[in-house]
Amino acid sequence: MRVHTRTVIVEWGHCDPGAIVYFPRYFEWFDASTAALFEDLGMPKAAMLPRYGCAGLPVVDLRSRFFKPSTFGDRVTIETSITGWRRSSFDLHHRLLRGEEVAVEAFATRVWTVRADDGSLKSGPMPAEVIALFSGSET
Amino acid sequence: MRVHTRTVIVEWGHCDPGAIVYFPRYFEWFDASTAALFEDLGMPKAAMLPRYGCAGLPVVDLRSRFFKPSTFGDRVTIETSITGWRRSSFDLHHRLLRGEEVAVEAFATRVWTVRADDGSLKSGPMPAEVIALFSGSET
Amino acid sequence: MRVHTRTVIVEWGHCDPGAIVYFPRYFEWFDASTAALFEDLGMPKAAMLPRYGCAGLPVVDLRSRFFKPSTFGDRVTIETSITGWRRSSFDLHHRLLRGEEVAVEAFATRVWTVRADDGSLKSGPMPAEVIALFSGSET
Amino acid sequence: MRVHTRTVIVEWGHCDPGAIVYFPRYFEWFDASTAALFEDLGMPKAAMLPRYGCAGLPVVDLRSRFFKPSTFGDRVTIETSITGWRRSSFDLHHRLLRGEEVAVEAFATRVWTVRADDGSLKSGPMPAEVIALFSGSET
Repeated sequence: MRVHTRTVIVEWGHCDPGAIVYFPRYFEWFDASTAALFEDLGMPKAAMLPRYGCAGLPVVDLRSRFFKPSTFGDRVTIETSITGWRRSSFDLHHRLLRGEEVAVEAFATRVWTVRADDGSLKSGPMPAEVIALFSGSET
Repeated sequence: MRVHTRTVIVEWGHCDPGAIVYFPRYFEWFDASTAALFEDLGMPKAAMLPRYGCAGLPVVDLRSRFFKPSTFGDRVTIETSITGWRRSSFDLHHRLLRGEEVAVEAFATRVWTVRADDGSLKSGPMPAEVIALFSGSET
Repeated sequence: MRVHTRTVIVEWGHCDPGAIVYFPRYFEWFDASTAALFEDLGMPKAAMLPRYGCAGLPVVDLRSRFFKPSTFGDRVTIETSITGWRRSSFDLHHRLLRGEEVAVEAFATRVWTVRADDGSLKSGPMPAEVIALFSGSET
Repeated sequence: MRVHTRTVIVEWGHCDPGAIVYFPRYFEWFDASTAALFEDLGMPKAAMLPRYGCAGLPVVDLRSRFFKPSTFGDRVTIETSITGWRRSSFDLHHRLLRGEEVAVEAFATRVWTVRADDGSLKSGPMPAEVIALFSGSET
């Protein structure tokens, strides 16, 4: 399974008056890690969307646990992987580590979304080429 | 059960290039609704924290489902209630509605946090006065 | 001159570890006030953009001064007005007040933007109908 | 003059429905670059604040021009330098480049802030040690 790993510096502006990361920020980081995972496999979001007529990959289901806070100046590591594929959605696992310790964990389901003729958003089948990128990376 | 209800206008800056709300924003709104729920009962966060030596109410567990997107210009309604109390934590239920339809739902657990002598954060017992506010409101 | 006035509650999540508003948040608020000013005149952004083929109203010039900080729980008032029009841009004045006191002030210039055939953004002439809304409101 | 340079990836979540960076985000990045500039000289903000009893470095004056938009997937370069010191404030210059082109430029003044006995914030003299770090780096 392909795991994308990156380091994030916790900034002053990411933290709340308790001097810990304001929790919605974690989801911004997990979202950016999801994009980075696709880009690592040669499929940057900015190219993938127009190529396949995709309108985005919105999260439809999210579970998260917050074990340890982080504060500004901390370097944290974010690990992201895809744990399952369905016809028009896929599952992600995110772990945010401080040193060896898991500080935040999240499981997200995202939907491959296309724009219907009336402009509304609906799910669509994921292109085989996109799924193949991830399969190929497992060998 | 006390339910706090408010209307939020979805702004241009809340939305992503898909022209729908960027999902971490929902959690900012649910967080603000949590504060508003306390304030409604006469216990604004800015007064409650120093009064009881509380360092904050961080989320430790979060589950959320996103059923329908919203776009800029939309008026959405957010309903927030506390669904359970424990010694040092409590559970919240948030629903975001577009018209009659539930567009986003979330369940969050938050911890009453105090600062230990070494500056670290730890959970602490919730003051009876705080819990009583919510009990009183149910009669 | 038409002035749009609204109240904003400063939230925990708007503040940084100094317990004061993290300054980029002010610009989110001024942006929302700009949209509200248009909506007040019967021209909500969500309707205006498709009607006139406008791609947005990006800020191209910004000057701001921060006189007083605000903290979570504060109610602040934001006043926004348009102070000048040019062919494809206009000027805004924003004031954020705590009580009677101006806490933050900003002057912004925004451009009426359209999408060129190659997908890039360029300035375009503002529709007379849009400008007329504001002229009409001054009488 | 010491210039801190870093690369930022423009993320989906940084962009608005026009698919360009939502402008308050630029100020988050400039703020992070300011912290990085101090850290480069061996004075990370998380260590500097408690050491000198500093409550933060709020921006009091800001001017910015936005010449070119950026979109998700773009790599941009941010250059930050301190251009002047006064007793209790200092001036910063930020440039955001796409390739060789300046896309955004900002000039900010920040104040060295301490907490008065009554809890309010006020300006204080910058420690000579802090200023010396920057002087030393110019030789």
